[in-house]
Amino acid sequence: MPDLPTIDAIYAALQDLRARRPLVHNITNYVAMTVSANVLLALGASATVVHAPEEVEDFAAISDALAVNIGTLSPPWVSAMQAAVGKAKELGKPWVLDPVGCGATPYRTLVSAKLAALSPSVIRGNASEIMSLSGQVGAGGKGVDSSARAEEATDAAAALAERCGSVVALTGATDYVSDGAGLVAIHAGDALMPLSTALGCALSAVTAAFTAVRPPREAAIAALAVFGAAGSVAAQRVRGPGHLPAEICDALYGMDRATLAAAARLTA
Amino acid sequence: MPDLPTIDAIYAALQDLRARRPLVHNITNYVAMTVSANVLLALGASATVVHAPEEVEDFAAISDALAVNIGTLSPPWVSAMQAAVGKAKELGKPWVLDPVGCGATPYRTLVSAKLAALSPSVIRGNASEIMSLSGQVGAGGKGVDSSARAEEATDAAAALAERCGSVVALTGATDYVSDGAGLVAIHAGDALMPLSTALGCALSAVTAAFTAVRPPREAAIAALAVFGAAGSVAAQRVRGPGHLPAEICDALYGMDRATLAAAARLTA
Amino acid sequence: MPDLPTIDAIYAALQDLRARRPLVHNITNYVAMTVSANVLLALGASATVVHAPEEVEDFAAISDALAVNIGTLSPPWVSAMQAAVGKAKELGKPWVLDPVGCGATPYRTLVSAKLAALSPSVIRGNASEIMSLSGQVGAGGKGVDSSARAEEATDAAAALAERCGSVVALTGATDYVSDGAGLVAIHAGDALMPLSTALGCALSAVTAAFTAVRPPREAAIAALAVFGAAGSVAAQRVRGPGHLPAEICDALYGMDRATLAAAARLTA
Repeated sequence: MPDLPTIDAIYAALQDLRARRPLVHNITNYVAMTVSANVLLALGASATVVHAPEEVEDFAAISDALAVNIGTLSPPWVSAMQAAVGKAKELGKPWVLDPVGCGATPYRTLVSAKLAALSPSVIRGNASEIMSLSGQVGAGGKGVDSSARAEEATDAAAALAERCGSVVALTGATDYVSDGAGLVAIHAGDALMPLSTALGCALSAVTAAFTAVRPPREAAIAALAVFGAAGSVAAQRVRGPGHLPAEICDALYGMDRATLAAAARLTA
Repeated sequence: MPDLPTIDAIYAALQDLRARRPLVHNITNYVAMTVSANVLLALGASATVVHAPEEVEDFAAISDALAVNIGTLSPPWVSAMQAAVGKAKELGKPWVLDPVGCGATPYRTLVSAKLAALSPSVIRGNASEIMSLSGQVGAGGKGVDSSARAEEATDAAAALAERCGSVVALTGATDYVSDGAGLVAIHAGDALMPLSTALGCALSAVTAAFTAVRPPREAAIAALAVFGAAGSVAAQRVRGPGHLPAEICDALYGMDRATLAAAARLTA
Repeated sequence: MPDLPTIDAIYAALQDLRARRPLVHNITNYVAMTVSANVLLALGASATVVHAPEEVEDFAAISDALAVNIGTLSPPWVSAMQAAVGKAKELGKPWVLDPVGCGATPYRTLVSAKLAALSPSVIRGNASEIMSLSGQVGAGGKGVDSSARAEEATDAAAALAERCGSVVALTGATDYVSDGAGLVAIHAGDALMPLSTALGCALSAVTAAFTAVRPPREAAIAALAVFGAAGSVAAQRVRGPGHLPAEICDALYGMDRATLAAAARLTA
């Protein structure tokens, strides 16, 4: 695995994203739609949220990246995800999979595995999801929340990355990015973040936005650093989780190099 | 009906909830999903929002309580609700029904009646909904808002409680809990709350969380007192309804015994 | 086209709306539902969000206006929109069409054209949407965002208004209202607003609320002025887009004549 990206390299990715304003096509869950779109707009990307089989392939064609999230999945939506992914792959466009709650139910695990087999550019999940998806069934999650620490899932992340030809972004108190060959740890974020719903889903959308301007590994690292830094900044401005999504949007909107350097740190 | 719960008893229920962090399975309306999940997380519960027939029974099995809300109902979702309720009942798990807009259309009234016949642990509704559901058809609501005062619906609440074997939580300027035999009034909340959408739906989710740690009557009273107190606190921090959901989350997150005692009062 | 409405006339429309509290039936996209309902409530209207074929006609009957928004459309939802519009027209109730992303995909353009052919009271869209819908296919949008300036679309707006027998509300940095015969420009709002998702959709809902108390042209002008003024006020209270929806609700809730006069200006 290459050297650690510098904060300058990550900030350059953010500047490129803001300059290009990539269109991210989201097929995501109902809970996460609004916050995902708001986070993308605040970051400097453009966002669409569409799922009809009649047009998902057309949207894949005009989008710069695709974010697929199975949070409130049902068979027609899964079909739409598969169609959109097929078109994105055909056109060489990057896509991100968020296997929400993989391991919580057999249906969810099956759908996650089917989508992962389509070789996402990046798979973003918590420890329970990544361990389950990596074949370590039985890891178990508590609904859509993780019951394991990220550190317990780094081997599973590496195995999953290798098996799918994907980069795996494993999130928790510390976040990790694995491309199968090496591991980077991203230290950012705040313990308050899991108390606001769908922030992990929004992070997956942010990751998709970065894949439009960087290769998957650099994109995943940049997304975790920038979003985590925004979370750190936001958490200092609130006294509870209520205003966290809005403050994260403001922090993304105002993110500069100095803030990023102060609020995110990478280690091998 | 037993004596009134004390504030200490209600606060103990909140502490138990925070300690146990029950997983609440929500099959709810699109408008309410995000705020319901956020309110549950801020309260100290865990939340899932899933509706696929392929997995609702599995989620009922791993959840501690189920919240069913018909706000944006359609036939496939109603089937999922029935399946989830069936499984929850089979497993002896508590569930809460929020018959949004019951009485506004024949379809909504029919579905509400069908679900109520499954004997929810708690039914939470406004005066129009409770009067309609209790068979006093013609009470009429204005869409999903109530056109009657809660005080006009206490008899209907008692009749409904008795007929369904449920506890009925009737909300309005003053809230009431009836188990058929007796009535408790909960004085809390703020007149600004109806101007922020889906707070009643979120309250139903909070009620479900409390049913995981207390019997239905105590759970309903605790939910109304804690959520109402949070609303009172939140309303004092805003100049309009815009920030109310976020402030309610913060108030739930920070709720302590003194705040609860100051902001909620119970009478027989 | 008649003279420009005065600020007094617009404020009188707002006062009438608050006094009557019209019920607006929304068949809208998932992303916009919560913010649309909150904006309507803060404005002084009542809101329902329902889409089931089993009851959309019943809701059209008890509502004062209908807002149709195709943002996350799919065939069953389009059928529900058509049924609700049919009933609203039969009962002589006003309705507003928001053709989100018209021009972005053939399906979206086709559905927009079908609904526009039903002669909405008001069509509210950005430049790309209005140009596409007006038959100037090829205008192209970037997903659901406009890639054209409103000024480039005023002729298309006039042609569309005439063809559909509708009033067209064309939004951008400056907003325009055309009834085919004349054009009014509304100067209000803030450049931050496009960075918060679904505010245009919420504006369409606000427009529907005003159609319950004023004819379409006056309603569209009042909606743009009041909502734009709220956006201007809100933008001055934030440092990014995160809190904009909540601040807009507060600004709508507190809107008075002096604020409206200071923050919105009309020109022919």
